[in-house]
Formats: sequence, C-alpha cells, structure tokens
Amino acid sequence: MNKKVVTLGDVMMRLSTPGFARFTQTETFKIHYAGSEGNVASALAGWGVPAVHVTRFPENDFGRAATESLRKFGVDTSSIIYGDERLGLYFLENGAMQRSSRIIYDRFDSAFSYIKPGMIDWSELMKGARWFHWSGITPAISQGAADVCKEALLAARKQGVTISADINYRRNLWQYGKRAIDIMPSLIELSDIIVGGVTDFENCLGITVTDFEKGCKEVQKKNPAVKKIANTHRESISSSHNKIEGMLWTGKELLKSQQYDLTHIVDRVGAGDAFMAGLIFGWINEKTEKQTLEFATASCAMKHSVEGDVNVCTVQEIDAVLNGENIGKLLR
Amino acid sequence: MNKKVVTLGDVMMRLSTPGFARFTQTETFKIHYAGSEGNVASALAGWGVPAVHVTRFPENDFGRAATESLRKFGVDTSSIIYGDERLGLYFLENGAMQRSSRIIYDRFDSAFSYIKPGMIDWSELMKGARWFHWSGITPAISQGAADVCKEALLAARKQGVTISADINYRRNLWQYGKRAIDIMPSLIELSDIIVGGVTDFENCLGITVTDFEKGCKEVQKKNPAVKKIANTHRESISSSHNKIEGMLWTGKELLKSQQYDLTHIVDRVGAGDAFMAGLIFGWINEKTEKQTLEFATASCAMKHSVEGDVNVCTVQEIDAVLNGENIGKLLR
Amino acid sequence: MNKKVVTLGDVMMRLSTPGFARFTQTETFKIHYAGSEGNVASALAGWGVPAVHVTRFPENDFGRAATESLRKFGVDTSSIIYGDERLGLYFLENGAMQRSSRIIYDRFDSAFSYIKPGMIDWSELMKGARWFHWSGITPAISQGAADVCKEALLAARKQGVTISADINYRRNLWQYGKRAIDIMPSLIELSDIIVGGVTDFENCLGITVTDFEKGCKEVQKKNPAVKKIANTHRESISSSHNKIEGMLWTGKELLKSQQYDLTHIVDRVGAGDAFMAGLIFGWINEKTEKQTLEFATASCAMKHSVEGDVNVCTVQEIDAVLNGENIGKLLR
Amino acid sequence: MNKKVVTLGDVMMRLSTPGFARFTQTETFKIHYAGSEGNVASALAGWGVPAVHVTRFPENDFGRAATESLRKFGVDTSSIIYGDERLGLYFLENGAMQRSSRIIYDRFDSAFSYIKPGMIDWSELMKGARWFHWSGITPAISQGAADVCKEALLAARKQGVTISADINYRRNLWQYGKRAIDIMPSLIELSDIIVGGVTDFENCLGITVTDFEKGCKEVQKKNPAVKKIANTHRESISSSHNKIEGMLWTGKELLKSQQYDLTHIVDRVGAGDAFMAGLIFGWINEKTEKQTLEFATASCAMKHSVEGDVNVCTVQEIDAVLNGENIGKLLR
Amino acid sequence: MNKKVVTLGDVMMRLSTPGFARFTQTETFKIHYAGSEGNVASALAGWGVPAVHVTRFPENDFGRAATESLRKFGVDTSSIIYGDERLGLYFLENGAMQRSSRIIYDRFDSAFSYIKPGMIDWSELMKGARWFHWSGITPAISQGAADVCKEALLAARKQGVTISADINYRRNLWQYGKRAIDIMPSLIELSDIIVGGVTDFENCLGITVTDFEKGCKEVQKKNPAVKKIANTHRESISSSHNKIEGMLWTGKELLKSQQYDLTHIVDRVGAGDAFMAGLIFGWINEKTEKQTLEFATASCAMKHSVEGDVNVCTVQEIDAVLNGENIGKLLR
Amino acid sequence: MNKKVVTLGDVMMRLSTPGFARFTQTETFKIHYAGSEGNVASALAGWGVPAVHVTRFPENDFGRAATESLRKFGVDTSSIIYGDERLGLYFLENGAMQRSSRIIYDRFDSAFSYIKPGMIDWSELMKGARWFHWSGITPAISQGAADVCKEALLAARKQGVTISADINYRRNLWQYGKRAIDIMPSLIELSDIIVGGVTDFENCLGITVTDFEKGCKEVQKKNPAVKKIANTHRESISSSHNKIEGMLWTGKELLKSQQYDLTHIVDRVGAGDAFMAGLIFGWINEKTEKQTLEFATASCAMKHSVEGDVNVCTVQEIDAVLNGENIGKLLR
Repeated sequence: MNKKVVTLGDVMMRLSTPGFARFTQTETFKIHYAGSEGNVASALAGWGVPAVHVTRFPENDFGRAATESLRKFGVDTSSIIYGDERLGLYFLENGAMQRSSRIIYDRFDSAFSYIKPGMIDWSELMKGARWFHWSGITPAISQGAADVCKEALLAARKQGVTISADINYRRNLWQYGKRAIDIMPSLIELSDIIVGGVTDFENCLGITVTDFEKGCKEVQKKNPAVKKIANTHRESISSSHNKIEGMLWTGKELLKSQQYDLTHIVDRVGAGDAFMAGLIFGWINEKTEKQTLEFATASCAMKHSVEGDVNVCTVQEIDAVLNGENIGKLLR
Repeated sequence: MNKKVVTLGDVMMRLSTPGFARFTQTETFKIHYAGSEGNVASALAGWGVPAVHVTRFPENDFGRAATESLRKFGVDTSSIIYGDERLGLYFLENGAMQRSSRIIYDRFDSAFSYIKPGMIDWSELMKGARWFHWSGITPAISQGAADVCKEALLAARKQGVTISADINYRRNLWQYGKRAIDIMPSLIELSDIIVGGVTDFENCLGITVTDFEKGCKEVQKKNPAVKKIANTHRESISSSHNKIEGMLWTGKELLKSQQYDLTHIVDRVGAGDAFMAGLIFGWINEKTEKQTLEFATASCAMKHSVEGDVNVCTVQEIDAVLNGENIGKLLR
Repeated sequence: MNKKVVTLGDVMMRLSTPGFARFTQTETFKIHYAGSEGNVASALAGWGVPAVHVTRFPENDFGRAATESLRKFGVDTSSIIYGDERLGLYFLENGAMQRSSRIIYDRFDSAFSYIKPGMIDWSELMKGARWFHWSGITPAISQGAADVCKEALLAARKQGVTISADINYRRNLWQYGKRAIDIMPSLIELSDIIVGGVTDFENCLGITVTDFEKGCKEVQKKNPAVKKIANTHRESISSSHNKIEGMLWTGKELLKSQQYDLTHIVDRVGAGDAFMAGLIFGWINEKTEKQTLEFATASCAMKHSVEGDVNVCTVQEIDAVLNGENIGKLLR
Repeated sequence: MNKKVVTLGDVMMRLSTPGFARFTQTETFKIHYAGSEGNVASALAGWGVPAVHVTRFPENDFGRAATESLRKFGVDTSSIIYGDERLGLYFLENGAMQRSSRIIYDRFDSAFSYIKPGMIDWSELMKGARWFHWSGITPAISQGAADVCKEALLAARKQGVTISADINYRRNLWQYGKRAIDIMPSLIELSDIIVGGVTDFENCLGITVTDFEKGCKEVQKKNPAVKKIANTHRESISSSHNKIEGMLWTGKELLKSQQYDLTHIVDRVGAGDAFMAGLIFGWINEKTEKQTLEFATASCAMKHSVEGDVNVCTVQEIDAVLNGENIGKLLR
Repeated sequence: MNKKVVTLGDVMMRLSTPGFARFTQTETFKIHYAGSEGNVASALAGWGVPAVHVTRFPENDFGRAATESLRKFGVDTSSIIYGDERLGLYFLENGAMQRSSRIIYDRFDSAFSYIKPGMIDWSELMKGARWFHWSGITPAISQGAADVCKEALLAARKQGVTISADINYRRNLWQYGKRAIDIMPSLIELSDIIVGGVTDFENCLGITVTDFEKGCKEVQKKNPAVKKIANTHRESISSSHNKIEGMLWTGKELLKSQQYDLTHIVDRVGAGDAFMAGLIFGWINEKTEKQTLEFATASCAMKHSVEGDVNVCTVQEIDAVLNGENIGKLLR
Repeated sequence: MNKKVVTLGDVMMRLSTPGFARFTQTETFKIHYAGSEGNVASALAGWGVPAVHVTRFPENDFGRAATESLRKFGVDTSSIIYGDERLGLYFLENGAMQRSSRIIYDRFDSAFSYIKPGMIDWSELMKGARWFHWSGITPAISQGAADVCKEALLAARKQGVTISADINYRRNLWQYGKRAIDIMPSLIELSDIIVGGVTDFENCLGITVTDFEKGCKEVQKKNPAVKKIANTHRESISSSHNKIEGMLWTGKELLKSQQYDLTHIVDRVGAGDAFMAGLIFGWINEKTEKQTLEFATASCAMKHSVEGDVNVCTVQEIDAVLNGENIGKLLR
C-alpha cells in the first residue's frame, strides 16, 4: 500500500549547550539539524515510512550537512532545492530543576525564507503521495513561504492527498507584515487533520474558547474539511519532571490517552513533532483512533528520553512502552 | 586470617555510549573492561581482600589492557593465561526514563572460550585459598570453559575451599550444543552458596516454582552441599528509577534486607556482581547472615551510583549508607 | 544610589570530576575558580551590583586565570594584590543517589594565607562602599588573614559601611594555632548581619542551643551590633534530591521562606553563597525582610541547577521561580 | 550520461583512539563505519556520482548505523541485505613520529562473510550500471564472499559494465582454506582495470618481478582483459611525514603523477581507496589518462588531511591542490 | 604616561570545528568571541595597556557572553552599547596539510550593523585617549557603521589622538550599496598609520602598483596625514607550514623583520591583529621603528601557536622568541 | 636470572592542558600520575622487568589513584607507605611551534617530603634486588628524603645491588636549607652509574668543565665507584621539532648513538626517564655498551610520540625504530 509522506518546512542548525551549561558558561555547542516538519519526516522514515522532505537550503557546507543529516535518518532529500543566503540557526540551553530550558532563534533570512512559488514542482511531487504535512511555522516565516505552502496544499488536495497541519503558533515569527490571522485560515481550511490547542485556535482562527473540546467543535464548524483535531497536554513540575497526555477529537468524541510521568527528562525539544509523527504513522497504518492516539502519545513521551529533535525510538520500543512492557529493564 | 578469593571467568571490553546517546546516534564509545566474576574480584580487591582472577586473554594490546584494568583495581593477575583469538566485546546503551538500557553482546570466539582443562594449575591455585567463585556464564560459553569450571570446582572441594556460584542464566549464550540443564546441575551440586532466582532454578536445575523460598528448599533438597541461597529483588519504575532489596535463604529462614529507593540511576550494570561481592565480603569477614545480607544489598544499591561494572565504593561508604549516615551530604 | 559591595577572601582553583566519575576513576578535571566571598561578589556583579573583591593571588598564570574568571563575572579586580606562593586548590567529586559528594581541600600555604595587615588600603577601599562582606573561612586560614579581616572590619565601621558575615565554621581549617572561639567573637561583634546555624554559634561564639530562634536571641544579647541572623535549612533525601528553605531572624521575629523541592540536582556547591548574595541584593535594593528572604532562598535553590560555585541565574529568573512562573517551561 | 557505479564489499565499525593515544592508554574510541569498497562508493557519491554499495549487515543497531553512515555520504543503500551474525570491527591506533600506526582487525564471522550466491539479484543491479568495483579483500573473507564476487563479475561482464579491482593482498585474511593464488586469477581475468603493486602480482597472480612496469606487462600478457594498471608509491619518513606519487600503466606507457610532500598527516587510512575513487571518477568523466592519474593522486594526497576512511574533499578542492592553487590559504 | 587605546568594531561568535574535522563531519563547535579590532584591544590589555573596545551587541545572552569574553581579556567594556538584532557569527574549519582553512561568515544584520552616529559619545571617549584604532571591516558593514567610524575619527583628530587603521579589504562585505573606493579614502586620509598591502591600496584607494614600497609612497602622496605603513608577507607551503615576515615603511625607508618559519601551525586566524597590536604596543612604549616591527612580527608569529583569535602570549614570551631565547625549551 | 629493580622517589599528580591550550585558556586538565623514578619503574615493568617503586603517599583518594596508576603499569606497589599531608602536583602547558612548553610545580609539603629514615625496611627490600635507582630530585625535596636516599644507598651497597643515579639538578627545588653541593657528593660517591651533564657536574659536584668527556673523567677521578656516565644531547628547533642523541662514557671511551630527528612532537616530558629506563634495561639484559646506548636513545626518542610521562612503547617497537624498520608504516 502506498504510504509516501511529503513534508515541507525549514530546517535549522541547532546549537545546544552540553550537559546543563548555560549560554554564558559554555565553550562548545553540540550540533543537530532540525525543524518541525523535517523532524516528523525523519521519525517516519526511521519507522519505515517513505518520507520526502521539501525545503530550500543555502548552497554551502551547512546546507550540505543538513541534507546529509536528513538522509542519514532515511528521508528522501532529492526534492530539496539550493540557493544563496544562510541556514537558519537556533540555540538551545537545556534547563534543569526549576530553571527553564531556553531557545534563542537566529533564523531570519534563511534560504528557506526566500522560497517562492514555482520553485517546487508540487503536482509531480504529490503524484503517488499518501500524505502531506505542513506546520504553522512555514507561513510565519515569509510571504514566499506562505505562498509555497498554499501552492502545496492546493496540489495535494487536487491529488486527493491527506493533509495534516501542526498549527504551532509562534509569536516571535510573523515579522514580514502579516499576522497569523491574515494567513492561517485559508491554509487550515484546506487541511484534513490539525494539531493545536486553544491558544492556537485564538491566534490563527480567531476562535476564543477555554475548553479544548468546545474549541474543536468551533474549528470544525468554520472549517468543514477538518475531520480530526489532536493535541498534547503537558503538566510541568520542573524542567526535569513533566507529565504528558494526548487528546484526540475524532469529530465525534474526545479521546484521552494514558498519562506518562516523565522524570529525568533528557531532551524535550521535538516532543510535539514526535506526537505528530505518531499520529500520521497510526492513521497511515490504519490503526484505530484510540490506538493512533496512544501510539502518538507514547512516541511523544519516548522523545523526552533521547537527545536531538527527532524521535529515534523504534516502533517496537514505542509499542512496548505503550503496553507497559520492558520499562526500566536491561535488555540483553 | 586467610581471605584469598579466586574467581574464574571471561572479561570483555565494554563499549558504552556517552550520556544517553543511542547506538545509532553516538560518535564515541567509553571503554571499560568487565565480566561478572572479574567484577566480583575487583570489588573485593578494592575492599582489601586478596583476589586472584583467572581467565584467558588474547596476546594483544586488548588482552594487555584488560589485564592492566584488573591490576589497577588491585586484582592479582599473575594466573591469567594468554593465547590467540580475540577479546570478547559487549556494547551498552544506557537507558533513560521509560526507554530501556540495552546490551548487544559480541563475545563469541573469545580467547576465554578456547580455554581447555590442563591449562590452569588449579591444585596449586587453590592452595591457601579461602573462597572460589564462579558464575553460570562460564559453562555457557563453550565446552572447554564448562570443563575448566568443573576442574576448578573439584580442585576447590579437594582443598576445602568455600565455593559460591552466581547462577545467572543467560538465554543468548549456551550456543555450543549443550543446554544449561545438561551442564549446570553437576556444577551447582559442588557449590556451597548460590545466588539465583526462580527463573534460574527452572532453567539450570529444572525446578519449577513461583515462590523463592519454596524454590530454595527444592534446590537444597536436590543439592545437599548448597547451604545458602541469595538473590536481589528489583522493582523497575523506569530506567532512571528502581527499587531494590536483597533476600537470603540461610537454610533455615528467609531474611530480607532494607529496600533502597534508587532514583537518578547512573549505571546499573554490575549491580548483581556488587551484591555477590558483598556476600563474599560479609562471610569472609564473619559477619552475621543479616549483616552480610545488608552489606551486600547496600553494595548493590551503591553500584548504581558509579559508572562501570565494578562497585568502586569503599567499605566505609557502604556501611554509612547501610546505617543511613551521610546520605546526600557534602563531605568535606 | 550607592550600592558598592566589597568582599574579602581566598579564591581557589576548583577541580571537579566530570559527570559522576569518582576521584579514582577520572582522567580529567573541570576547572573553575571559586571561593565563598568571591562567589558572593560574582553573583552580585551578575545582577548589576558594583562588586569589588579583595584577595591575594600568586603572581603566576593561575593567579592571572583566577583574576580573569572574577573579571568575566563582572567583579572589579583592581584591588587584588599579587605575591609569591601558590593558589589554593579544592577537588570536588560530585555525588549521586545515596553516594555523597566529597571535597578534598589542598589550600594550605596559598598566597592569600600570607596576606598581612597594611597590604591593602582599606580606608581608601571603604570610601563610597555600601556593604562589606566577609566569612569565617578567612580568619580560619592564617593569623595574617584574621588580622586583615579585623583591619577591614574596623575600616568599614569607621565609614559606616554595613557588614555581613557568613560564619561558616570549618573544622578542617583553623590549623595555625588558634581556635575559632579565640578569634571569631571579636570579628562577629563588629558585624551587622550574620548567616549561621546552631553549630556555628557553638563553635564560634560558645553559645550552646538546639533551637535556632533561641540561638539568635543569645547571639544578639552578646553582640548588640548584630541586627539580623539568617540561615538555610536543608533536608537531604539523597545527593540528587534535597529540600531547602530559608530562615531569617529579623531581631523581632523568625521568618521562613517557601520550601523548594530540589530533585535532579546539578551542582550544590556554592548554594550558601547564593543565599548570602541574595540577602545582600535584597537589602541593598531595599526589599522587605520577607521579600529579601524569599529572593535569597530562591537564589539558593536556583544555584543547584547550574554548574560551578557561582549562581549565574538572573534576577528575572530568580523572581520567576519565586513567583512560581515559567517553571519547567521551554522559553523561546 | 550514465555514471552509476556499483561496489561490493564488507563494511566494518572502525574504532580509533583519540589524538595520539595508544590502545592501552585510551578510555574512549571514536566510531566510523568503513570498508575499502564502501569508501570508494562514498567518495564518488560525494562527488555527485550515483553510487550503489552492496553488502550484508547484521539486522541490529550496528547494521543500521553502518547503513545510515553510507546513506549520509549519499550512497544508495537500497541493495544492502540483512541477516544474523555480527558487524566486523577494526581498531585503529594512530601513529606519530617514528611510532607506526597500527590496526587490529576483529572482522571474522561478520554478516558479510556469510553472504552466498543467489542472495543478490546481480543481473537486475547491473542493468544501467556503468562501472563495477571490487577488491581483493572480498574473496579473502570467505568462500561465500568469493563466490558472490565471481557472480557479480559475470553479471557485470554480461551487461558490458566496466570492472575495476583493487587487488589489495592481505596476508592476515585468507583463513577459510583457500590461498589468494587459488582464487584471485579467475577474478582478475574478468576485470578491465586493476590497482596493485609487485607484491600483489606475486601473491595473487604468481608473477614475480621487482619492476612495476615489467609486472604490468606480465599481468596483461596473462590477463588480456586487463587494460590499465595503477598504483601509488609511498615513501615513509615517519608516521607524520610521507611522500606519495601515483603511477599508471596505460597499456602502452607508464605515467607518473606529481609527488606530494605530506607533512603533518591527519589520518592516512583509506588513502588507497581515495586513489581508486579518483581513478574511477576520472575515467567515468572522460578525463585523459594523465588527468585521471593526477586527479586520483591528488585525491589520495588530500585524504591524508581528513579524519575517517573516506575522502570528503570536494572535486573543486582536489582540482585546486592538483593545480597548486590556494594551498595553505585561509579561504573566506 | 597615558597609554589608553580605544578600538571600534564588531565582535562575532566564532564557531570552529574541533581538531581537523570538516564542517560536514563535526558534531560540535568550539566557541570564541572575536573580531579584528577587539582582538587588537584584547592583546593590548593582556600586555597591560588600558584598552577600551567600543561596539554594539544584542541585548541577549550572546551579547552578554561576548562582553564577558572581552572583559576576561582585561578590556574595558563600559562603552559597549546594547540593542536588538543578533550577534554576527563566523564558522571556521581548520585546514591541514594541502587542505586550506575555510571561513563561512554569517554576520549580516548584526546589532553592530545597526549602529548610528550619536549613539556613542566620542568626544568624551577620546578625552585622555592616546590611540584610536579602526579597520576597513567596519565601514564595509553598513552605512551606519561607516558613519560612526568617520564620527570617531573626527573626534580623535580633534583631541590629537593617534589613529591607526588596518585597511583589511574584504570582498564579501561591502553589500550595502557602497564600494570601498567610495568610502575608504575619506577615512584613510584621517589616519596616521595604516596596515595594508598592494591589493588593499588598489581596492580602497585606487592605487595600482605591484611593489609595496612604491605603493607606500603613492599612499603618502595622496594622504599626507599617513606617516607609516606596515604589512606582513606570508609564504604558504601548506596549511600547517607558513613563513612570515613583517615590513614597515617608515616614511623614509622600508624595514624588514626577521622571517619566522612556522611549522605545525595551531591556529592562524587573528595573526594580522596580533601584528597590529604589536605595532601599537611598540609605538606607545616608544620603541624604535625597527624594534616595533620586530615585536609586531614576533607577536604575529607567536599567534599561530595559540588557539583563538587573540594573541595570549606575554610580552616576555614574545621578546624571548624575538631574541631567539628559550625556543623549544621546557620551561620549569 | 634476577632482574628486580627498586626505585625511590615522589610521584605527583600531573595536570596538563588539552591540545595546545594555555593555562589561562583551558577549562579542563588531563590527569596523569608521574615522577622521574616511578616513570623509570613503570617503563621497566612494561618491558617485563620486575620493578618495585618505593614512595610515601597521602592516605586519600589521590594517594590511592597514584598507587593504582603505578600498579596498572605493572609496578609492585606493596612497599609504598601512606601518611598524612598532600600529593604533590605539577601543571603542564604543552608548547607548540616557537612557544615553549611550561611546567608550574606545586609539590612542596607532599607526603613524600615527610618521609623519614626508619620508615622503609631497606635491608629487606634490597634482598634479591639486582638494581637500585634514585635521582637528584629526591634529596632536593627535604632533609628527610635526602636521609632516606642515603639509607637506601647504604643498604643497596651492602647487598651488592647495582646503583644508578639520574643527577637531574633542579634549581627550583633545594628549598629546605641545603644546597645540592652540600648533599649530592656523598650520594653520588655511592653510585655505580650516573646520568648527567656538565651543568649537573657543576651544581652537584663542583666540577666546572664545558666538555662532557672531560667532565666524565673528572667525576670518575673524584668518585671511583662511578663506572659509567651517560647523557642525552637535545637540539631544539622548536617545541614541535627537536633532535636527540645519546652519549655514554664507558669509563674508557665516549660512545654516541644515532641521532633522531623528532618532528611533530606529542609529549616530551619523561624523555630523560625513558633514556634512563633504557640504560637499565640494556645492562640488566647484558647488552653491549653500544647496544644499551642505542636502546636507551631509541626509547628516549619514542617517548616523544606518546602522551604522559611514561614510555609505553614496547621493546619490539623500540628495537624496530633502532633498526630503522617499520618507520611510518601502517602495521595491520
């Protein structure tokens, strides 16, 4: 069965401080290449799903290294285009105890922000695709990126490709003269499945509610194409200790997953992308809504145990945790 | 008083990933030299007990480095023999949170697996020894290793040396055409003290019980030489959080130690060997059964706080923890 | 408003083992430059308070590196003097779980221990100063250091500079022929504010009580100049898990701060200095007693989350924790 | 134009000591995945040549990591097969000054050594291929590997694919009961281009000469299919200082490249593979014999400046060195 | 005597690959904070010269860390201003052997590029200054930076402060619509001493000559204020081996320094700044022209032996090398 | 044949900066345990010679770690005594190019400096010994150490043990009120073989000559017991490039070894000890004078290629270099 997933989005160089060092203390950075949608593609590729990531990189060693990183994860990088400009960056300071983790972005003017409609042959790419995934970060980057996102969505719909969107509202983006509320509605209305919470609903759709379920119903009312809405709920005791559960509005009912007690957190960045990848994996493999939600939430939980933005845990490992097997064992 | 302890067993190069890196993520390995029985000898030597480890290494830099590692811990390495072949390896991926720790063995065809009766002068070695320790790993490696183990046991009994065995059943060994049940009974019946649980009893002695105390009685019925049987009971909340307690069947009653709450685990590998070393240390120093069990369990607990397979905590430190002293203090 | 703080005390090279390695396991040390009073100055400088640290260093690369370290934190190092001899050292082994953290000092015969009255122009230095801080470590080092401390105290009083003292009794110092009880009373009686507990009261003032509040009243009775007495109360579950709260005797009543649950401790050394710095910061900025105590205790708690002796968390971060904001969040 | 290159051979985990540490000194290993033919494919892929590597890996995390490493370099890994057994290893100790570099192999019983004819669909693979490359290491590993090599050669010839062979005689392989002289002649006679020297000629073809040119003529007389023979000539002043030049017997004349003075060598392992990749790159891009030899030798020289077995220098960089441009410059 | 030196220029975060790793190979970066004029100030401060660096940083942790780095070197950072935007970056890949070192800049839109006239109180700053130093990088960054440079030069001349300029033409800057030739002449004509070569003369002053001495005379003819012109001459054998000598046109004659044979180069970046700092140090301390040139060239040579952009060698060390003393000795 | 070698001397913790970092730049130190005479014992033990090192360590983790380090090398540590006080330290900054390597000692008041006659049972230790080795560092440390050295020498002579001395004059020691000339003559006159140069002769024996051979004759005239005198001659081109040759006055003639060109030096510390160990190894194995000198000089040369104070190269490797074999080869 065809399972090809296409994703679109910028990939940055992530520079993180080692251990618990602060930005002003560190003498070194650890390098990863990461971005929300590429993280989703990488997790899926690791689980055996054919995943194609589309982006635009600078034609230099960092564009090359970012491509190699995606390729290492098994992502098909043959649709990436190259140009001038720079690779976006983000700096990560890992929190501990009561001290919060912090990210400093330096992603403006990336090669991706200069992407323009016509640069990617979307109708070709969507042929034979089963799924297209985008996030609210892309239209927040530049008008060109927003336009390319729309272009992709239209091509996807034309070919009957299922579309998922991680709304992911980011206040510190949207610097090119448009607000989320100006752009997002016309993109969300083309999507089948969205991930988001009440803050996202408010900022991107102008829907003001405090209850998630009520919000989901409002979203669907305004956007008939949207069939399912999912989100995670995180409770923060400290930077080292969180609790997490997943929620899925199936269009009819609100399902909740088991809750995971996450002590001794290794790296929480990318947990939302691991949830997203889990949802796509579940649906593409025709799991039930409940199974899909549980898989996605377990994927999200497991992401906290590995360094980097990508969930490199296997399907077997995620299933085991989901079923309460092997937890804390030494597997020989 | 004579306290010389002789141990027999293979020693491998342990290659572990740094921090919480996974096998597919890491660019480096940390090196230790480790093996169940050598770990016991190393802990005992660190506590001032004269310990002689017997093994067979390849005559190359890794055999030399493994010897140096044992010597560093204070183990007498003068009875080690050298030959062709390779040093066995094992790879360790440290777990975190809900993600399990994993070991990949690459130990077949080690120099030790080619050991043969007659290579070691056991009657000479057992002269003046107080204790001989072996584990179920050795007879699982090769027919030669099983034969040498038997040879050592007979020499030990002849000289009245006390014999302890860590049954330690490993499914993925026993590849040379024999099953544990074919070999282990004739070795266990020569031993005075064993460490094992109900799974070990079933696989190595064909005794099928679910209750440890009942199992101990069965073992003793079949093996009159076995005087005491000990084991640890581990409860796994996650890879970072376990609880552990020790149990000792004295031949008359089942003693239980205090339970330790092990949060923020550093490295759990070798905890069983730390327990074993603690038992030998207790008995050789004529502690009571209860004191011995408590020391062994505290040794096992403390092992989780140090990197590597060997418990490098001192007797003073273990005694302090056992007595609830200094815990969490900053000792100046 | 004038906020200049002057501190006096030795600064050592701190050599700590990486991760959870023990002294006998490590192949490397991490280097910091640290000392109780310099830590206080460094934290204050980081918070924008003009801080001058006075000490005596050897005229070699390590004296130079220690100076550079203070300067990096923003401390005014222009009053440091240089001479022969060595830089004191201390070695730190980070504990984990039930295993205690340990410090081995190698600080005798430091350049600071050879400091003598007349070497520092205290009357010049105290001009325009708002605060002078010393600790019980300085008079414990050598007769010269005790004399210089007295010299500084007299100059400070003459100029109306507020004086704080962290009594900080250390049994393994006081090797030059004097006991704490011989020297400390005449220094404490010149101080306005002290930090200490009942053990300090006993060793440094000969006041034997078991209750902190009662002790405070006794201290004040004997030392009318002392207006306030503060301390922290630490509960140790393990090396990785402590609880901490602050106490402040205002001269009239005993205030207690909120208690912090400190799990996943990164580095607890210097937590007392972070508390001290917090107190000075509060008073110098004319916070209320309660606000000052809460700020100091939050500063103390936050110190546990960063490596090194100095609390490098910002005022904003400490205030947020104190108000329960952002805890465990990922700040973008 | 079609430029697809197919390579066959085992890939090992390379574990090298950091800096100039010796095997008995090191506490860590740096990890690379490497093997002669895979190195050739990786270099070619880096230069934009479509390269397919064929091998057999164990179905575990190390087989997966080795695949990911090849994929990162851009090699097509879709023809790799997986099975039981282990990944071969080699350990590298980097020499310095008069002290030689050393390799300890631990590659027996690798998953590749259990490869058998029929496992790979060679006729499918050779369709559309322009070049097939093998080395003398493969038939030295096992009868199965030798048989698969023959199978590949016959399929390649059938499709008119050009065949190159790096004879690469290794004394410490050939342990399965056959000698090189028993197997190699029937493989070499199917090849168009070979790399080797007089020692290789003697051990693999029974041709005993001391002069390279004379040897080339003898090889061609016995093997009419062989059209060109190349080799490098290395002069060793120390482990840190070599000189290298390339030679190419075109069938008519012996060409020599410029000689490179290699001081401050970073890592010489894989230099022969960089030479081989350079030859294939030259011929596939229809450079002249002289240009091809110069490119290959410059590639070989440049390999000494980078860590790992693969020449990660670009075509532009190699061309620049070859033309004496930019040498020692700081390129901004 | 007054020796205060004021410098102006951007400071970037330098991210360099460890050892000889390439950009596409590395998993970590080493962090330094560096920029041509700040490097000069840092070297001078290390030699005891009061140095004030003026720049504009982003008001975030990286602006703070860059400030701390300058302060650690002893530079007076009290005139630095802070604003929005980002810290510029540059990435360094250390070359080896025939492989060139490479720098990728990512410095556009730095906080410094948004500096504007009026932001710095130059007349206040130049009071009591002995020397002002700028480089051709500053006016190449933005119109604002060029204007501020002019503003500083006029203030310096007004106060009779000596002005030096490192012309340092960089092709890949000058992106804001002006060419060097449009801006530089009006800045150079205000300077007393310049460092540059014939390429700089051509690009910045339109003087086309091939001979340095002839060029110097031309420069002086057009710019009567310019009294001296210096430069280094580098011969590159490889990235690991260079030769360097200094040249000084005194206005009357061309002096040449001894030549240094630089084998085993550690880090060549910042060597020009070390030369510049050496010149200023010599003149400010009233050395002769010849002594000054020799000191500057030795400083330049010594810079190659230390990591980072700043020459951290002491005056004593530089003098020793200059006099051929202690070279290659082990100083105890 | 009996080959037991006994050595006496302090062992320090060596803290060296990584790579080419300077003391003021480094954030970490690499740890070794080292001292002249212990280095000799360690090299000999590595070559299979039974070596006993005698010293006094503090009874703490660093005394324990130093013991473990010697034991790892194979040295018999059973005669080491323990007491109060500290372990001596030395800090090493590795030079590069024209920049010299530097050592900062911090070794005063070590546990060894408090050693006293009667603490070691020398008559027991010398029984069955073949060789005793001491150096001029020991009597320079303290009166007690000088007395113990004399005590050992007398015991050695009594048992007919051959005595070697590395005179090794160190200006910065000899701080306890005696000069070398006060103490050394009475120790040298008890020795059979000495290593030293004309500076040592002058400072320790009052013999002022400029020619080594003439000096040797003078030494022998004054000290009839001294039969042979050896030394190395080092030519320093830079910290990275030296030349070295050995000289041996046999009592009759002056032999010179081949000269080694040492480029790309890794670590030169301990080269003299490697020479000394080579001499002892040669004589104890009854090599000729010429063979012994060549072995010792090759050992000295090879030491430069390994990190740490101890020559960990094997006899086979040293012999190969001595015979010009394998130099710069990759040994598989």
